[in-house]
Amino acid sequence: MTERRGRRGGGRSARHAARAAQAIEHQPFLTRDVAPHEVLSEEGLEIIEQNADLLLERVGVEIVDDPGALDIYRRGGAEVDGTRVRFPPGLCRSIIDGAPSRFVQLARNPARSVAIGDPHVVFAPVYGPPFVRDLEGGRRYATIDDFRNLVKLTFLAPSLHHSGGTVCEPTDLPVEERHLDMVYTHIRYSDKPFMGSVTAPERAKDTIEMAEIVFGRDTLQSSPVVISLINANSPMTWDAAMLGSARVYAERGQACIITPFILAGAMSPVTAAATATQTLAEAMAGMAFCQMVRSGAPVVFGSFASSMSMQSGAPTFGTPEPALVLFTMAALARRLGVPFRSGGNLTASKVADAQAAYESAMTLYPTLLGGVNFVLHAAGWLEGGLVAGYEKLILDADQLGVAGPLLSGVDMSDNGLALDTLLDNPPGHHHLGSRHTLDNFATAFWTSDVADNSSFEQWRDEGGHDAVTRAHAIWRQQLRSYEPPPLDDRIDSELRGFMERRKSALIEGNESR
Amino acid sequence: MTERRGRRGGGRSARHAARAAQAIEHQPFLTRDVAPHEVLSEEGLEIIEQNADLLLERVGVEIVDDPGALDIYRRGGAEVDGTRVRFPPGLCRSIIDGAPSRFVQLARNPARSVAIGDPHVVFAPVYGPPFVRDLEGGRRYATIDDFRNLVKLTFLAPSLHHSGGTVCEPTDLPVEERHLDMVYTHIRYSDKPFMGSVTAPERAKDTIEMAEIVFGRDTLQSSPVVISLINANSPMTWDAAMLGSARVYAERGQACIITPFILAGAMSPVTAAATATQTLAEAMAGMAFCQMVRSGAPVVFGSFASSMSMQSGAPTFGTPEPALVLFTMAALARRLGVPFRSGGNLTASKVADAQAAYESAMTLYPTLLGGVNFVLHAAGWLEGGLVAGYEKLILDADQLGVAGPLLSGVDMSDNGLALDTLLDNPPGHHHLGSRHTLDNFATAFWTSDVADNSSFEQWRDEGGHDAVTRAHAIWRQQLRSYEPPPLDDRIDSELRGFMERRKSALIEGNESR
Repeated sequence: MTERRGRRGGGRSARHAARAAQAIEHQPFLTRDVAPHEVLSEEGLEIIEQNADLLLERVGVEIVDDPGALDIYRRGGAEVDGTRVRFPPGLCRSIIDGAPSRFVQLARNPARSVAIGDPHVVFAPVYGPPFVRDLEGGRRYATIDDFRNLVKLTFLAPSLHHSGGTVCEPTDLPVEERHLDMVYTHIRYSDKPFMGSVTAPERAKDTIEMAEIVFGRDTLQSSPVVISLINANSPMTWDAAMLGSARVYAERGQACIITPFILAGAMSPVTAAATATQTLAEAMAGMAFCQMVRSGAPVVFGSFASSMSMQSGAPTFGTPEPALVLFTMAALARRLGVPFRSGGNLTASKVADAQAAYESAMTLYPTLLGGVNFVLHAAGWLEGGLVAGYEKLILDADQLGVAGPLLSGVDMSDNGLALDTLLDNPPGHHHLGSRHTLDNFATAFWTSDVADNSSFEQWRDEGGHDAVTRAHAIWRQQLRSYEPPPLDDRIDSELRGFMERRKSALIEGNESR
Repeated sequence: MTERRGRRGGGRSARHAARAAQAIEHQPFLTRDVAPHEVLSEEGLEIIEQNADLLLERVGVEIVDDPGALDIYRRGGAEVDGTRVRFPPGLCRSIIDGAPSRFVQLARNPARSVAIGDPHVVFAPVYGPPFVRDLEGGRRYATIDDFRNLVKLTFLAPSLHHSGGTVCEPTDLPVEERHLDMVYTHIRYSDKPFMGSVTAPERAKDTIEMAEIVFGRDTLQSSPVVISLINANSPMTWDAAMLGSARVYAERGQACIITPFILAGAMSPVTAAATATQTLAEAMAGMAFCQMVRSGAPVVFGSFASSMSMQSGAPTFGTPEPALVLFTMAALARRLGVPFRSGGNLTASKVADAQAAYESAMTLYPTLLGGVNFVLHAAGWLEGGLVAGYEKLILDADQLGVAGPLLSGVDMSDNGLALDTLLDNPPGHHHLGSRHTLDNFATAFWTSDVADNSSFEQWRDEGGHDAVTRAHAIWRQQLRSYEPPPLDDRIDSELRGFMERRKSALIEGNESR
């Protein structure tokens, strides 16, 4: 519980306040000034930690098709028995101690580099959908055109600090090649930080080489310029694609988000405490792996837990039980001293309707109050992650604007308390024209760019559009006015050259099979 | 931070758990097992309390057209100067000490009586809209038929614990009479607790007399059976209609919700801390009034704060600044030791679209985590409170289901921790068929009754309906299948007789003018 003090000046500081607000708006990530919400006592968190240690000691994790990873675990002090890796109590925790509690991921535009870890919050768009949907075109397989559009729209959204990764699957490109086009698109059409390929170790290497062209080899030695999503095969299993990619990134000091992706009741027991226990164990095994590869390599503790429909067994979102898991995991990550990833704007809805918005907000609010540092899927997610929604991206990105003021907390400066104003104002006299209101009005309230707050009559006369219709007009207009950030021609042509060579090699590789 | 312990039994307690869950579902209000979210330190809260005391001492409150209220304040120890009432430091707080921290409002069906105050939460529907909207009929003036429909739908919603008050204004009835029909409708078509009329002291008296017919005069002497909404005329003003009604209710030991209704920047300074200071001062003056009328009369500390559009000055909802005020006021109410009312499912949207749902959820989440005890406007609110939405009522009431599991916190019993299950399960083996999952699945997750979680293909083949279309079908069906709760014929005819006599008297009163 920290309140802001003296951040803003006295009554005459209107222009200062306005300038400060602008600066905040242009800060490429958020800073949380308030304490996170807690749902468990220290004692409760300790019990979960002890149980996770027991799980790692007795059950351990299974490593699929990756003898190299087994060697790394063995050398790191774990007990390797066939393909099973077990951990003496406390081993993971002591190894993870070497990971940074916060790190900066560089963007090719240095003004857009992001700090990942407490007390900061970074928003990134939806990741992974094979489909897209928009109001006019409906639902369809995603293409590289869609990918490019979503990168552009993310670039234009002030609340999205990060370009993300697989904002949608460009299904019109060959599987072997599409990672090259995805990485290139992030670099070419945005200057925000981005995510790397993880579907095979060679694709992680391609990501690294492209990043080296942009940032220079030396930069990568000292700083992460790529962050990548490494998912566990829950329960308690890690596969070669994921560990292989993690190894490539960790060796080069690049950041990995280690995320058990859990549908509770299927990949873990059905209760929140047990899901938290297993998530902690799996994430610790993954984060320890990265540290064994290279001590100090930046890692993010990820947690993705969803609930199930009691009727159909389908995954459900915006429900209270995953929120309890999120609050618990955030507290466990803080105790472990590593940045935390979870939450987003999640929904099972097919369209950007009231269901989508309720479920998204019911995921986002715990994300914000829980103290999540890296928020993947912060905008654009529909249909349980199968669909990237154009309008949903606009609507979600707009709602992310709530985060800044909420996380800044109550301004307890003299200007915030406004005691003189309160004492000088006679009963019944409104404050609309008061000095204090005039000085503060421009920065007093967050206002949505998509919401309609006008009178019914005005709204009706302007067409009576609902939110999704307004969002459609917004992204159409944004794509029309989009201008790419500058990119050095030499770098661009080097990137294109690299892609051409790699694509040729991949085709030959395929032909020789 | 309190976690649940041992609430549920071991692995073999599936039927017990199911039964417990059913009992929870049928409990007529919620109980919060987790600590509320705090945004200010104790020191910060003390500063606001001191400033509110200064405001009451130096500025005080203006009492409009109510000499009787001035007498009550004078006798209670306040300094009365003309129509201005000022309070020595600490006076209000010490007087409010006599108010109960929690009380039970009786319902005519005793199984539906609600506990108002920590650690409980009670949900009531929207209050006050002159218009209604539904998908088929569009937006129109509300009638007594709409009022009856909304009372019936509220009666049928398990998540709505309270029948509310002016669920919409029955604009087809004469202003002088409609309070009689509203109170009668709550009694006749629901057996949940309800709210009384506050638009004039005589209407409050009518409410009391009708309640006496239902509950018996003696019951009212010992228990509140009516709760009523007393709004301040902010800034720092109370009028005769509100104080007169409050006096009628407090004299008879009936409950009042004392609510400064504040559009920050207009009725208060624009900052959260100053809005909180003024809200505290105004609410204390109102709650002290009730205690001066009758020490121990149940009061609820209310706060309704909204922000403004930076573009148009229109009120906005679901924004972060009112959430900060809510968290602050909830903490101040806890320190004062009285139940707290705030929040709801608020929106400025004209229709039940994504905007409506985002804004509603962004109000509801702080309502739940902040520790609000009585939640008015928990379902059905549209267009800044001008419209009661049929579909919105269904959608909101459904979302209120999130509250129970969220406020129960993490189950840390042996069953919740599921350590044996975790240790017995080999890596890679899913938990779908495990003993623990089977034992717990039926009660593990809250599932929405309105959300569609099915596959895209199934959703499409079933018509591809959005949430509002599904909600429309639900309320239509509910009204068709509605059956009124039993009401003693004698009571019903006494109520009708009373209304007839009062209506005749009111008509004569009008004719004689």
